Amino acid sequence: MASSTPPRRTASLLIDCPDAKGLVASVSGFLYQHGANILHSDQHRDDEQGLFFMRNEWDLADFALDEPAFAAAFTPLAARFGMNWRVEYSSNPLRVAILVSKQLHCLSDLLERFSTHDLPGELRLVLSNHDDAGPLTRFHGVRFERIPVTPADKAGAERSQIGILLEEGVDLIVLARYMQVLSGDFVARFPGRIINVHHSFLPAFSGARPYHAAHQRGVKLIGATSHYVTEVLDDGPIIEQDVVRVSHRDSVAGMIRQGRDVERVVLSRAVRWHLEHRILAYSNKTVIFD
Amino acid sequence: MASSTPPRRTASLLIDCPDAKGLVASVSGFLYQHGANILHSDQHRDDEQGLFFMRNEWDLADFALDEPAFAAAFTPLAARFGMNWRVEYSSNPLRVAILVSKQLHCLSDLLERFSTHDLPGELRLVLSNHDDAGPLTRFHGVRFERIPVTPADKAGAERSQIGILLEEGVDLIVLARYMQVLSGDFVARFPGRIINVHHSFLPAFSGARPYHAAHQRGVKLIGATSHYVTEVLDDGPIIEQDVVRVSHRDSVAGMIRQGRDVERVVLSRAVRWHLEHRILAYSNKTVIFD
Amino acid sequence: MASSTPPRRTASLLIDCPDAKGLVASVSGFLYQHGANILHSDQHRDDEQGLFFMRNEWDLADFALDEPAFAAAFTPLAARFGMNWRVEYSSNPLRVAILVSKQLHCLSDLLERFSTHDLPGELRLVLSNHDDAGPLTRFHGVRFERIPVTPADKAGAERSQIGILLEEGVDLIVLARYMQVLSGDFVARFPGRIINVHHSFLPAFSGARPYHAAHQRGVKLIGATSHYVTEVLDDGPIIEQDVVRVSHRDSVAGMIRQGRDVERVVLSRAVRWHLEHRILAYSNKTVIFD
Amino acid sequence: MASSTPPRRTASLLIDCPDAKGLVASVSGFLYQHGANILHSDQHRDDEQGLFFMRNEWDLADFALDEPAFAAAFTPLAARFGMNWRVEYSSNPLRVAILVSKQLHCLSDLLERFSTHDLPGELRLVLSNHDDAGPLTRFHGVRFERIPVTPADKAGAERSQIGILLEEGVDLIVLARYMQVLSGDFVARFPGRIINVHHSFLPAFSGARPYHAAHQRGVKLIGATSHYVTEVLDDGPIIEQDVVRVSHRDSVAGMIRQGRDVERVVLSRAVRWHLEHRILAYSNKTVIFD
Repeated sequence: MASSTPPRRTASLLIDCPDAKGLVASVSGFLYQHGANILHSDQHRDDEQGLFFMRNEWDLADFALDEPAFAAAFTPLAARFGMNWRVEYSSNPLRVAILVSKQLHCLSDLLERFSTHDLPGELRLVLSNHDDAGPLTRFHGVRFERIPVTPADKAGAERSQIGILLEEGVDLIVLARYMQVLSGDFVARFPGRIINVHHSFLPAFSGARPYHAAHQRGVKLIGATSHYVTEVLDDGPIIEQDVVRVSHRDSVAGMIRQGRDVERVVLSRAVRWHLEHRILAYSNKTVIFD
Repeated sequence: MASSTPPRRTASLLIDCPDAKGLVASVSGFLYQHGANILHSDQHRDDEQGLFFMRNEWDLADFALDEPAFAAAFTPLAARFGMNWRVEYSSNPLRVAILVSKQLHCLSDLLERFSTHDLPGELRLVLSNHDDAGPLTRFHGVRFERIPVTPADKAGAERSQIGILLEEGVDLIVLARYMQVLSGDFVARFPGRIINVHHSFLPAFSGARPYHAAHQRGVKLIGATSHYVTEVLDDGPIIEQDVVRVSHRDSVAGMIRQGRDVERVVLSRAVRWHLEHRILAYSNKTVIFD
Repeated sequence: MASSTPPRRTASLLIDCPDAKGLVASVSGFLYQHGANILHSDQHRDDEQGLFFMRNEWDLADFALDEPAFAAAFTPLAARFGMNWRVEYSSNPLRVAILVSKQLHCLSDLLERFSTHDLPGELRLVLSNHDDAGPLTRFHGVRFERIPVTPADKAGAERSQIGILLEEGVDLIVLARYMQVLSGDFVARFPGRIINVHHSFLPAFSGARPYHAAHQRGVKLIGATSHYVTEVLDDGPIIEQDVVRVSHRDSVAGMIRQGRDVERVVLSRAVRWHLEHRILAYSNKTVIFD
Repeated sequence: MASSTPPRRTASLLIDCPDAKGLVASVSGFLYQHGANILHSDQHRDDEQGLFFMRNEWDLADFALDEPAFAAAFTPLAARFGMNWRVEYSSNPLRVAILVSKQLHCLSDLLERFSTHDLPGELRLVLSNHDDAGPLTRFHGVRFERIPVTPADKAGAERSQIGILLEEGVDLIVLARYMQVLSGDFVARFPGRIINVHHSFLPAFSGARPYHAAHQRGVKLIGATSHYVTEVLDDGPIIEQDVVRVSHRDSVAGMIRQGRDVERVVLSRAVRWHLEHRILAYSNKTVIFD
């Protein structure tokens, strides 16, 4: 079907390093020399900070290097330019966990996208502090675990969560309207691997009850923001944002309802780009490669 | 929950008639005189055609007239102005059927909205010419019927469909990416009561394979349109449209994927407004009341 | 021309008061009784605060009451419901002053709109703390005054400005990227009659250099906001907002450039709605009537 | 100023050719070898048609090749891959003419952008079949010529226009709501060098009076399209499109008014990208390079 992941095996190389002459020539020369058939190539230069970012995705069909051989061959070039780099293979789809509370609109949307292979990763489990998400999750054949979170034993709950996440070998954690704040310890276990959707156009209305705050301020557009989670609440690198028009006629309930449509879209785009290895985060920002 | 339908019982009066002085005064005077506590009131004048449109929604708590009494009392006033009118009661939610083929993204979205009471109607059944939609529909506790449609026996299939729709007393039929063209006879059985989503920004790219046509034409935005179904394909009154930005980088498959997000939103808005009795269609257009 | 103000003479009645039964009936009955041919009528109820807002615009051709007669006849009704009200006549277009500094994109846009009668008011003068705006303003036949503003004599400059504004009988002051903060005294002289455009999506990035702040935060949309000026900087009732998509590729300069397109549109819409008497401000919000 | 063209001298190389392995490596290797400090590099592959497109912009400060030397050195590489290519130098800004009729909103906007150096080209003249645009054009110090166009002598008028355009050495012709259809001969003289703005979301509502057609069809969004002019009316490669929301309340005049804001933005973006050498047209589409 048109929307399914193409069966061809590809590799994606992501690089960031200080900007220098000859970077594109060296990297594309290296890939060409080893038989890469480039499918996508995108670069970005941050002139202010003097940084260079690059993503190349190529078909592995004629490529001469397997994973260990690539590392051996590429390391000298990477060292010359001081690169941070990694290669991701489409044959190793990322393993995903979704954390959710009682509102299921984002979860429902993501379940549909994973089950139709609209999203390329492997959804391993859904974790919740409530029961509500259980039936739909299990209908889709996905493992569901309820781990209650109480003020008294939040640390214990997080230990249980982390245990299951490690057991499933989870690469990406998606907070699909998960209403608990993760501890710094939890976040530090999964750096750059937790995506949250916040129901406002950040940095406006961070924190609790953003639709109420937006209603009170009388804004004419409401938004949603997907971002990587860092130790500072609602402050991590923004991945995607979108808005919808509201008016004086919209009650808080109406804003909540319309906001859900934006939340779904904004979160699913962020998850897609992460799973396609299209995002590099730096300086609390993101580069989204084409 | 914040987004659920409020439990208060309301009535909605929809009027269209030739424009004249005193219309608002007469109608609002009538409602006031019988104790209506107005919640929403909206009017529209079409200056070109000299037409007047009005919707009033009021709380029934203190209202003096029940359904038959309302008709008896309002008829003389309606006659004086030559009004078409109807009253809808929130205690009689509309009964809805969804027709779907193999693509389930709109269906999945609507099932979630009905099951969380985000949409106010009563979803009675899902009809399909394929089996794919069965499991999810039944998971949500909704009746599912498969009626195969073959070129040889399309008329017979439509008879079966109509039979079930009448049996369930369906008020609104939603074509959620249903890939069969309904016959004129079918459409005539449910005038102004069939909503379709077309996967283009109508009137551009009507007919089959609109994303392919949009890709070939090199447009920079793609859209979706929800509209009432008439006997002319993709030509009925437009209810809602929206777009999303694309670029030369987007393949047809990418357009299809991004288009799905627009289809979902555009269709669900149209269904909501119809179920809330906010739409009046005339001259192949729609008035959407606030 | 299609876009010019129609020559018919109209009156607009704006009302706000505590919500009560019979408000629409009473007001529309009053207007009907005196021969008003209603062109636009719009209401809003703020359920939380129990407030009612209404705007009626009617053709004066057959209307029985002139300005003093209207006040005499309407006052008892207004008193009964505790209304704040005012009537505006299209034959008395508002007199407008624009304050601007060195960036002329909003001014240039507004001058074009006033000179083609796309905007209904009467532009009386342009005030600036610099010379840059002089030639274009004078080309359009509009009075231009430069009043330098220095930290040492800001109060004196404001006295001069106020003198000219009063001399011209200005009803509306538009800050078209005027880079000086007005004193509380100045603002208090023109309550609800000063419109500013702020170059961010408020409440995000209030204060100075919002595009720099947006760039640093890595947002994916930038916006602009038009609002009434109050004594608190960037905090008055929001009239209109809009956004444009940006990416990691956009430098601060690129954001500034794209932001200008949003500023122009957002400011000109606010000015239009004010001049058409479509705005009621309350609780630091605005109702924008249809 | 933040938005002005940076003074550094750059070159932009645009390439299109059949896709092949080693293209990026060869081109970037060539540029590196001659000392190019790359500022922007963007590629696109059209998988369906097997085509490759590339744009590189580099700082000329350390670049070893002047214009003739570049051609000599690059030709063998270009021949090997079957490239169409050209180099554009920022020191040779394009010369622009604007054609306009009686509606001046796009012209006014472009004049402001050229005069503040927001747009990088050199505006040489404004041509019109009417007098209206004369004063504002001359105010900005730009040559204005009126050439009346009559049905009887359209060919003669075009000969006069072409004469002046050639005399001024014009590289780009911008139709800023110019209401005459250019002949095939005229278009053929300036292939890929005429940009028009059409006041609809093409391909919907091509031809005359698109806002009237949109109003009649009852669409919920109206748009504008900038595109290269070809011999087929409103059918050339689309450069940019945008839309604005309308409702049943909007008259044709209201649509015209709101549409103007979209026309301005959509046209000025197309002009900017052309002047920055960011557009490649092929197969009646455009690639817009980052």
